[in-house]
Amino acid sequence: MSVTSPAGFVATGVACGIKDNGGLDLAVVATADRRPVTAVAVFTANKATAAPVQVSRAHLAASENRAAAVVLNSGNANAATGVAGVEHAERTCAVAATALGCAAQEVLVCSTGLIGIPLPVDRIEKALPGAVSELHPRGGPAAARAIMTTDTVPKEVAVVADGFTVGGMAKGAAMLAPDMATMLAVLTTDAGAERDVLQRLLREAVDRSFNALTVDGCTSTNDTVILLASDHTSPDSTKLGDALGRACTELAMAMADDAEGATKVVHVVVEGAASDDEARRGARAIAESQLVKCSFFGEDPYWGRVVSELGACGITFELDRVAVTYGDVTVCRGGVAVDHDAVALRRHMTGRHLRLVADLGLGTGRGHVITNDLTYGYIDENKGTS
Amino acid sequence: MSVTSPAGFVATGVACGIKDNGGLDLAVVATADRRPVTAVAVFTANKATAAPVQVSRAHLAASENRAAAVVLNSGNANAATGVAGVEHAERTCAVAATALGCAAQEVLVCSTGLIGIPLPVDRIEKALPGAVSELHPRGGPAAARAIMTTDTVPKEVAVVADGFTVGGMAKGAAMLAPDMATMLAVLTTDAGAERDVLQRLLREAVDRSFNALTVDGCTSTNDTVILLASDHTSPDSTKLGDALGRACTELAMAMADDAEGATKVVHVVVEGAASDDEARRGARAIAESQLVKCSFFGEDPYWGRVVSELGACGITFELDRVAVTYGDVTVCRGGVAVDHDAVALRRHMTGRHLRLVADLGLGTGRGHVITNDLTYGYIDENKGTS
Repeated sequence: MSVTSPAGFVATGVACGIKDNGGLDLAVVATADRRPVTAVAVFTANKATAAPVQVSRAHLAASENRAAAVVLNSGNANAATGVAGVEHAERTCAVAATALGCAAQEVLVCSTGLIGIPLPVDRIEKALPGAVSELHPRGGPAAARAIMTTDTVPKEVAVVADGFTVGGMAKGAAMLAPDMATMLAVLTTDAGAERDVLQRLLREAVDRSFNALTVDGCTSTNDTVILLASDHTSPDSTKLGDALGRACTELAMAMADDAEGATKVVHVVVEGAASDDEARRGARAIAESQLVKCSFFGEDPYWGRVVSELGACGITFELDRVAVTYGDVTVCRGGVAVDHDAVALRRHMTGRHLRLVADLGLGTGRGHVITNDLTYGYIDENKGTS
Repeated sequence: MSVTSPAGFVATGVACGIKDNGGLDLAVVATADRRPVTAVAVFTANKATAAPVQVSRAHLAASENRAAAVVLNSGNANAATGVAGVEHAERTCAVAATALGCAAQEVLVCSTGLIGIPLPVDRIEKALPGAVSELHPRGGPAAARAIMTTDTVPKEVAVVADGFTVGGMAKGAAMLAPDMATMLAVLTTDAGAERDVLQRLLREAVDRSFNALTVDGCTSTNDTVILLASDHTSPDSTKLGDALGRACTELAMAMADDAEGATKVVHVVVEGAASDDEARRGARAIAESQLVKCSFFGEDPYWGRVVSELGACGITFELDRVAVTYGDVTVCRGGVAVDHDAVALRRHMTGRHLRLVADLGLGTGRGHVITNDLTYGYIDENKGTS
């Protein structure tokens, strides 16, 4: 299961010397015949847009959503690098295009790593021809490893649907928050659909998956999800959307499971809200609360902080209607503590996967967010860049 | 320097048995003659309002802003405690009023500690008559100690102005965020002003001080700032406002200095913004970023995260106009890295007080927020309630 699982795609991952430790840091995903296919993408909402995001956006516009390859590097985000950063991203595409025999605007580019440091583009240029010569239908796993930063495991997926396949790879471990989680993902499929339909299906899949994930509330400069669709078959758009949604959700869950320093994966559900939007805002407020996240780490079902966050986040809220449940154990009803099965509660809190449901008792609005606990390990990962 | 520094006020702090460790946990601040004076207050914006906040608000309305005493307990927030919680807060006021010889509605009440646990009001009732009998003009320091939770030092202030004095005490170490920082503060003054003027002056002082403080972005259920003004003199309102502002700022800085687990106090300034409001939103986004706060802990001037937060927080932003400065050392100009004095930068980052200025290069808007680093110690303080 990888980005090369669907028919017609090849990939590779090589070490070009961006990472000090000599690890894989340059990936290429391409069509097997080097001819462009339909390509759609969803990019970060951050206004401090990284150079590769600017260049990929421009290439999709110029090519009318046709691409033959995606080049990705880890170890350097090529963000906050000014005009030189854009030139470096363009040069990366041009060199790859020459090696592949396609047009530069048919190459998309992604970077992930530190912000504000000039991209060592010469190393990428030097390594790209060799990488292109190594492109292979079984190269997906190497590509997935080459985009890892603080990820501890590569993240890959393949969804085999009725007559077509969706494959994918992603990276992401921190700086994860909606719109979007800090992450890169490349999806491939041998299915196809009209460009605007494909764009809508990808956006919906991203909203249901990556955008429901918040590790630390930080939205990065580089987030990109690209879908290459080779259009060998044209399934029903609902079926294609479902397969894309499943692929994105699997990758998002793999990210949550590998979040920096995390010891818990927590599903936060707010229901009974005045609207779905308010429910989602409430769920995010809980999921992004430093205090609540410390409680998860401590396996402490401290629902007082949960109702406090709900009361502070600006949504419609009446304390005396609220119920809070961890796992299957309701600890607060009508806004006050209730007797509960302490043994069952303890059993749930000590597990790796937690589920917290806050019912606001007001309406039918429902929202769901996935997050992690706040741990010593998260601080260790992020206290220094050297 | 304490809440009893201004003429006409007495206070005490006793141990009534709410805290398991036998520490001081019940404070009373009162007028020396037990007669009511003008009282104004600013309360939490959290909709999960704690019982003492509800009761104090009702008492101020019923008494037309007259109060003779404030009763404060630590060790239990009396929040998310339902109807019983409100009855307990009312009973606290009634018992204090009997002991003091004033009306119950002339007593205000504050609680701080864990949320969702019934207040052991019987212990407060039993201890209050003795506490009232111990009220003393030099009792301020004991009162300040009795409201501490995870605070490591009591927080007191006295500002001696031209012909009048403002005294005060506060507690607060986490769950600190604007509107308001999680905190309780009682201020006293022998000066006075018309009630509405006093309310405005207090609101302005709170906005400039406590509301510029964000330790963890969590707004609590119990935040309260109360000012008792005995009106022995009637200074110019500007002078009174200045003294109140200085007193609140000193208490806010003492809170920042004693924030849970913190090793750094950081002044975050955003300037050159499209408006003051946008500048303040930008400063809060930086100050509340888990990733930026980890960088402060690691003494790492990673400005890439700073521009990423500014780009993600929804304010007007153009990366190529941004400059970022730590201390006196500019590390980013025009949105890209610039050469700088690494030794001076290192010297600044290793100090206890950091200053980070982000100039957006767009307008004249300016905002200032005080925060701390995110540390192992913060997690230790907050991972469990037991």
